[in-house]
Amino acid sequence: MVNLIPAPRELRLTGGSGPFGGEVRTRVDSSLAPEAYELTVSHDGAHIVGGDEAGVFWGRQTLRQLLGPDAFRRAPIEREPVAVPYVEIRDAPRFAWRGFMLDVARHFLPKDDVLRYVDLLAAHKLNVFHLHLTDDQGWRIAIERYPRLVEVGAWRPRTRLGWGEPPLWDERPHGGFYTQDDLREIIAYAAERHVTVVPEIDLPGHSQAAIAAYPELGNTDVIDTAALEVWTEWGWSPHVLAPTDAVLRFYEGVLDEVLDVFPSRFIHIGGDECLKDQWRRSATAQARIKGLGLHDEDELQSWMIRHFDRWLTARGRRLIGWDEIVEGGLAEGAAVACWRWYTGGIAAAEAGHDVVMCPQQEVYLDHVQDPGADEPVPFGWVHTLEDVYRFEPVPPRLAGTPHAARVIGTQANLWTEVADSRARVDYQAFPRLAAFAEVAWSRLPDPDERDFGDFERRMNAAHYARLDAMGVAYRPPTGPHPWQRRPGIPGRMHHKPRRTWHMA
Amino acid sequence: MVNLIPAPRELRLTGGSGPFGGEVRTRVDSSLAPEAYELTVSHDGAHIVGGDEAGVFWGRQTLRQLLGPDAFRRAPIEREPVAVPYVEIRDAPRFAWRGFMLDVARHFLPKDDVLRYVDLLAAHKLNVFHLHLTDDQGWRIAIERYPRLVEVGAWRPRTRLGWGEPPLWDERPHGGFYTQDDLREIIAYAAERHVTVVPEIDLPGHSQAAIAAYPELGNTDVIDTAALEVWTEWGWSPHVLAPTDAVLRFYEGVLDEVLDVFPSRFIHIGGDECLKDQWRRSATAQARIKGLGLHDEDELQSWMIRHFDRWLTARGRRLIGWDEIVEGGLAEGAAVACWRWYTGGIAAAEAGHDVVMCPQQEVYLDHVQDPGADEPVPFGWVHTLEDVYRFEPVPPRLAGTPHAARVIGTQANLWTEVADSRARVDYQAFPRLAAFAEVAWSRLPDPDERDFGDFERRMNAAHYARLDAMGVAYRPPTGPHPWQRRPGIPGRMHHKPRRTWHMA
Repeated sequence: MVNLIPAPRELRLTGGSGPFGGEVRTRVDSSLAPEAYELTVSHDGAHIVGGDEAGVFWGRQTLRQLLGPDAFRRAPIEREPVAVPYVEIRDAPRFAWRGFMLDVARHFLPKDDVLRYVDLLAAHKLNVFHLHLTDDQGWRIAIERYPRLVEVGAWRPRTRLGWGEPPLWDERPHGGFYTQDDLREIIAYAAERHVTVVPEIDLPGHSQAAIAAYPELGNTDVIDTAALEVWTEWGWSPHVLAPTDAVLRFYEGVLDEVLDVFPSRFIHIGGDECLKDQWRRSATAQARIKGLGLHDEDELQSWMIRHFDRWLTARGRRLIGWDEIVEGGLAEGAAVACWRWYTGGIAAAEAGHDVVMCPQQEVYLDHVQDPGADEPVPFGWVHTLEDVYRFEPVPPRLAGTPHAARVIGTQANLWTEVADSRARVDYQAFPRLAAFAEVAWSRLPDPDERDFGDFERRMNAAHYARLDAMGVAYRPPTGPHPWQRRPGIPGRMHHKPRRTWHMA
Repeated sequence: MVNLIPAPRELRLTGGSGPFGGEVRTRVDSSLAPEAYELTVSHDGAHIVGGDEAGVFWGRQTLRQLLGPDAFRRAPIEREPVAVPYVEIRDAPRFAWRGFMLDVARHFLPKDDVLRYVDLLAAHKLNVFHLHLTDDQGWRIAIERYPRLVEVGAWRPRTRLGWGEPPLWDERPHGGFYTQDDLREIIAYAAERHVTVVPEIDLPGHSQAAIAAYPELGNTDVIDTAALEVWTEWGWSPHVLAPTDAVLRFYEGVLDEVLDVFPSRFIHIGGDECLKDQWRRSATAQARIKGLGLHDEDELQSWMIRHFDRWLTARGRRLIGWDEIVEGGLAEGAAVACWRWYTGGIAAAEAGHDVVMCPQQEVYLDHVQDPGADEPVPFGWVHTLEDVYRFEPVPPRLAGTPHAARVIGTQANLWTEVADSRARVDYQAFPRLAAFAEVAWSRLPDPDERDFGDFERRMNAAHYARLDAMGVAYRPPTGPHPWQRRPGIPGRMHHKPRRTWHMA
């Protein structure tokens, strides 16, 4: 059995199997769609025809799955020669944007581990790697003109453990950052694997680390920002950027360097969870609202987002942001990463904006994956492997309408408040990212009609063995290994009902 | 400037430099010594002649250093083309055994991180990777016939933090193990880089994790071993293997699988720090001493070591153990890893045994590297970068005698009681492992005459940049980054004078 994940569009077993010598003949045929490929394995060897080089690459990933789990190891181990089944596969992705977001701000993940995630994404035919590089709890990209962003912003003296009251602390200082050359290396390594790295510089909220480094970025007429430190709590920091020209110039300087490093067409500027309290109390912010003829603080945020939208567009890039950027009016050409249920994404698509669907109710991989008591630091809603498998990126309201084409893709997001190590990231990401990859790549039927049993069968028959070969510390189907537990560290579960596709 | 580390035997700048196109012509010439190479870079490109394939590989490592630090990244980053200096280099290692021991028992290091260390060793022309796979605090290799060794022995519920009284605890369960296929992958990956992986199964001491898994391995007539758990303390556990036939058979079973996985000629069986108190109290052990006509418990340990020496020899392998195996008589053919000063190694060499010099007074990289107050969990003696650079593997007493040839090499050891993550391992290992690599490879003069200033200059001019490119979290020359500190966790420094080469 071939047990491919994600499932290909068309698969025909042509009968028999034979040893594989390692040679693959490849060809690009631009009459195929972008990223599409045709893979033939016969007594004559393996042939891959791709619609482009990416298609050839995805065909190679499929072939690797046919070669057995040891093909996912980094060096050959002694084994009987593998008999490869003779097949004809015609395949193409459903979505152009098949993304994974990793929050390297709350917990820094060293460069080697990021490179490893590039490999893991490529093996699952995911092609967008969104790096959440800045947040209240850490700034992870060196900016040459503003060295304090990492000197001050890249570390914190201690870290909140879980979510309980009274708080528990890990008293170990935490920090780290990527040099621009590190990021160039990650980008080049990803490009070789047809993965695009999308950087996120989050503004105007989630900026306390930046303000700790450069207090003038904050609302200095409201609080003494010089006393601010990189945040050691989780949640929404009240300390947001001031809506001043100086702040715009500062972030233009940041983005100038970001554009120099990242060739990605899309640049993510965050825009989520910006508390407006300081702006309400700030004479400077209020004068700005008045001067610009705006109604309120939401429009002031829109004004900031629009500024960077124009700024990026003038440089040949496109802005993407979290769906809060829909509020107060969205700039033309901006795309929306829809995280708060389908709502903002539907509005954005209907208004002609491109949408990447990544609702926290469905594909937030920091959320707990089992209701059992052994899950480490359970957070959010329970998203089981089956839940993720039944996630549908196009909501019913858009399905069958021209607006559906505005859903350019989907993304799974992994925040790292409680995923404080590579092993914890692996545990949260896998096996669910395999189910997500099939959602993003394959043309699955409506959620209720999906054959989760078949997916689970392919996982058990082959894919867990591939993850083992890749050294992924996934959650075993039977529950966590003893050393994957975190007894004594409280989580925070969402108790209101999780909305699903049926409610969209 | 070329700034090579380790320094080559002969280097001639032939004048000028030119861009490098990437092509390297290589050839094996068996008239050169094993591992020796000659590298020529000229307008005609790069040529490497190796005494064997290993020599060619080491020549490639030297060429990579000539190409600049970005050659150590895993994907090319945009840069001006590098001008490579035209050189003629003739080089060969001083020692055949240039080793690094990593303790993956006290803290498990996942497979990917072990593979990464293979790359780091190869870049430094180190060629032996000794994996300390078993100890009181964890058993890290899956043994098919004894599944409880990892089911029970591969994890512990909590971990001692540092060395203070009263004890501090990290309450996170800790664990993990390598499957035999994981180890085959590591071995194959290392072999491609001309690095030999030497496994250590430590016996008869340092065995509490094994006894916790299989209580019958312990001295059951002295204590209730069924109540034993994997140890969460550091130091010398009193719970050692029973000197019974059943235990010998059990470990033959373990080693049977070890030999199946590891092609290494040398197999390390530990033999260190075995407390004899339980044997003194055990009627079974005392009967054994009497039955065998031995004098005491030291000879009983020798009897166990000799048993496995014969067992390994009969299978075409050679035993190596810590220098305690010298006590009570050493088996013919056995080699000694000399860790307690030069003493045991001198005795072993004079008795005709091969010796790997790795004295804790000189090259234990878990020991603290600076006397400053910011060092994380300082342990042992202070071994600065300069101290390691001035380590001489051949003690004065052996130098110039035929016995000197018995010192087949040297090894730096890194125990992981307080190095509880990859980042902490990096911090302890680097930059000191670069100095050690030069000691092991290059023909340096006597310790007092070594030009540490020149080594330091090469580090600053080029090698730290290479480590940066490889993503190594080394100790900066100016002291730890804030996030490399561990405030509040007590260490344990050795206060008696550290013996040095002068005292040998």
